[in-house]
Amino acid sequence: MSMLSSFAQSNIALCENDTAIRIIDQSMLPHETRYLELRAPGELYEAIVSLRVRGAPAIGIFGAFALYILARQHTLTQDTASFLRACESSRNFLNSSRPTAVNLSKMLDRVLHKAQSMVALPPSSILEGMRKEALAIQAEDIAMCQAISEHGLRLLQEGDTVLTHCNAGPLATSRYGTALGPIMLAKERGLTLHVFCDETRPLLQGARLTTYELQMAGIPCTLICDNMASLVMQEGKINACFVGCDRIARNGDTANKIGTSGLAILANYYHIPFYVLGPSSTIDFSCQSGRDIPIELRPESEIKEAFFSRPSALPSVHCYNPAFDVTPHTLISAIVTERGICYPPFTESFSQLFPHEYKENIS
Amino acid sequence: MSMLSSFAQSNIALCENDTAIRIIDQSMLPHETRYLELRAPGELYEAIVSLRVRGAPAIGIFGAFALYILARQHTLTQDTASFLRACESSRNFLNSSRPTAVNLSKMLDRVLHKAQSMVALPPSSILEGMRKEALAIQAEDIAMCQAISEHGLRLLQEGDTVLTHCNAGPLATSRYGTALGPIMLAKERGLTLHVFCDETRPLLQGARLTTYELQMAGIPCTLICDNMASLVMQEGKINACFVGCDRIARNGDTANKIGTSGLAILANYYHIPFYVLGPSSTIDFSCQSGRDIPIELRPESEIKEAFFSRPSALPSVHCYNPAFDVTPHTLISAIVTERGICYPPFTESFSQLFPHEYKENIS
Repeated sequence: MSMLSSFAQSNIALCENDTAIRIIDQSMLPHETRYLELRAPGELYEAIVSLRVRGAPAIGIFGAFALYILARQHTLTQDTASFLRACESSRNFLNSSRPTAVNLSKMLDRVLHKAQSMVALPPSSILEGMRKEALAIQAEDIAMCQAISEHGLRLLQEGDTVLTHCNAGPLATSRYGTALGPIMLAKERGLTLHVFCDETRPLLQGARLTTYELQMAGIPCTLICDNMASLVMQEGKINACFVGCDRIARNGDTANKIGTSGLAILANYYHIPFYVLGPSSTIDFSCQSGRDIPIELRPESEIKEAFFSRPSALPSVHCYNPAFDVTPHTLISAIVTERGICYPPFTESFSQLFPHEYKENIS
Repeated sequence: MSMLSSFAQSNIALCENDTAIRIIDQSMLPHETRYLELRAPGELYEAIVSLRVRGAPAIGIFGAFALYILARQHTLTQDTASFLRACESSRNFLNSSRPTAVNLSKMLDRVLHKAQSMVALPPSSILEGMRKEALAIQAEDIAMCQAISEHGLRLLQEGDTVLTHCNAGPLATSRYGTALGPIMLAKERGLTLHVFCDETRPLLQGARLTTYELQMAGIPCTLICDNMASLVMQEGKINACFVGCDRIARNGDTANKIGTSGLAILANYYHIPFYVLGPSSTIDFSCQSGRDIPIELRPESEIKEAFFSRPSALPSVHCYNPAFDVTPHTLISAIVTERGICYPPFTESFSQLFPHEYKENIS
């Protein structure tokens, strides 16, 4: 139980009698393990925007907790109707922090709809319902990641070397992780694996977070620059790619950290299987294809300035900084969810594994 | 004549009565334009290893100058035979600095063979021959880059947006540049172009050098992280890729900065033409294919530490840092040399454009 328990309860948690959320500030890792206690609306919003909490499942859970924390602040002076209006406003505020990952808006909506369903009750009762919903979301995430790890493990063999991009480990979820889950489970079951980690520019989540989590779990890893993936594949070093996801369309097109689509094209060229792993909450059945997924543009300074002792280019140089890209479903070998492994064609495997959600959203 | 003259004579030059070589320290750009005068063997060697001078054509010219400078130091106390042995030793020393680019060893050999061909003469006469050979190499590079620019210009159209990787501009040559040559010539001829520059991890030559050269030339450019190339291609922003080269095998396989092969695979996937530009001195006709090109491995610290205010990963994290990769000839739309544009199959176009060199090296 090296890794899977090491982040237990510590990653995202209610604290101070439910007046605050405690998180590890991921922007300071790996050098400082700094915990933050967040309570003000602006603090909660900023934590998402500045990637102090990040990873599609993690920001879903954090959003659910944040809406509950803010709802508590709305109960002091208001009746149920104005309380619910204030909750909706907080939901919209938190949801505007990041557009690409669907988990944030889905989990905010779950907590808000729970509140709205209790309209006949006083705010104190509604609050208790919101709290339970948020805690249920976290518990489900833990169970989903465990199930994803078990399913994903079937795709690994003794001695395999896996390439991963960005961070889809315990820090990106409530515990366990998605893309890293099967790798850590494999370690626990005694398999010897090796992981190549793309550093993942511009914010270096692969270098800062993934190598950190793997080393804590005792799994050997090698850090490379993103542009070295083609060579390590050409050299025969890679048996499979495992990546997370921020939003999956109903046809299997997958938005994930910028660079994922390029990696998938390389894997396809070198005939290396390319696996996407994520909880089913990441599938947006209302989204027909990747064209419908909004791509977040982030500040130019992240490319030229973040982490550098001096800017990499002159102030007059313009940058383009999309945070995500969409990998076409045609390049994905399988999508691993908590319910099982979906193989192409994804429209068929999704409709079999998620018959209710799939039908509900036929346009 | 904005750009093509702005580096005239300034990039690599003999100075101090031929006792030293003056270069711009490329490792300090774009923030500091620092000139270095180098004379000691260790200084000259270090300038290549530490990329103070870099770019395949530029290190060929620098190597030729360096061998001449060191030869002058050998004449003080020795007869012709021991002078030539000392020159050969200096050639081997300089050549051991970087293994992948063929230009360095080719140009060192040209100057050494010139010296060896004058064995009947005193060292002072041989020195004069070496000097003329080194200056001829520089003059040829300038003429070759001019010709490459003219040929490459035929591949560009008004309004095109070009993606480039690393730096193959004036700084990488004696003047003009290879991959950037046609782009700068196009600007001079009144075409409106736009250039996307891969930042080119780990040493950021694209961010530090290419955007700097393009801005000096008044050509609009956008800096991206290497892993964003797939998205900008997917978004239809790119009309063509232009890259330089460090060694081309006789079948067209091309070694260039790490990440080039990945870019070629992406361009191929998105049906975007992928052009390699370089002087014919970069073609190693004795090299059958890319498998015969040695790939330089550089220090792990370049990935984790260089340019960062703090290391990107913990000290215990291992890195893999290959400086080059090989792009298979099957992914290259054309190779532009000073003699013209070579289209696939390259074995045919090379044998037509370089009949002498091609036949001489049939194994």
